[in-house]
Amino acid sequence: MKIRLADRAKYQPDKMAKIALASTPRAQVDLYCLEPGQSQKVHAHDGQDKVYVVLEGRGRFTLDGADEALEAGEALVAAAGSQHGVVNDSGKRLLLLVLMAPPPPHA
Amino acid sequence: MKIRLADRAKYQPDKMAKIALASTPRAQVDLYCLEPGQSQKVHAHDGQDKVYVVLEGRGRFTLDGADEALEAGEALVAAAGSQHGVVNDSGKRLLLLVLMAPPPPHA
Repeated sequence: MKIRLADRAKYQPDKMAKIALASTPRAQVDLYCLEPGQSQKVHAHDGQDKVYVVLEGRGRFTLDGADEALEAGEALVAAAGSQHGVVNDSGKRLLLLVLMAPPPPHA
Repeated sequence: MKIRLADRAKYQPDKMAKIALASTPRAQVDLYCLEPGQSQKVHAHDGQDKVYVVLEGRGRFTLDGADEALEAGEALVAAAGSQHGVVNDSGKRLLLLVLMAPPPPHA
């Protein structure tokens, strides 16, 4: 029943990998795995909140036009409607735990 | 805007401390800070999912009658209706990131 987060990480060379860990009608839990230079471009969800938790590495996050560097042990809340994204501008892998509530419609 | 999780931890001698980090209509993000021996007793929420992420230390979690030890880097999803709880049965502090979706009615 428990999830060993780092053991579930998978990186791919062409783009950020998104690993689904759990999904319910109310919440979705994913890992985002970013090689150096990979990113999730800035976007917004009308009805979903997203919480990023940096598990390993560091990256640059955008929230409503403001940029901020986050590293392991730091979190960021992107409320519904906010413009958000992330780029791994470091030289090492970036591993994120990402929670969405509720799950996106396409999930 | 970013949250340095460990910097927000506060422990109290009499019982587990719950630190609110963020709350929206869709999600609530808390820290649970447990000194050795402290616990959150087993309970259930009819309409809320809870995701535990162990940030520091180790503890024993209960989910629907089954016990499991979790340590830093591990997570557990307690879906709505499940009986869940945690005890810090270790000799060191236990720090949890806890996400609830949606927030509990009393929040």
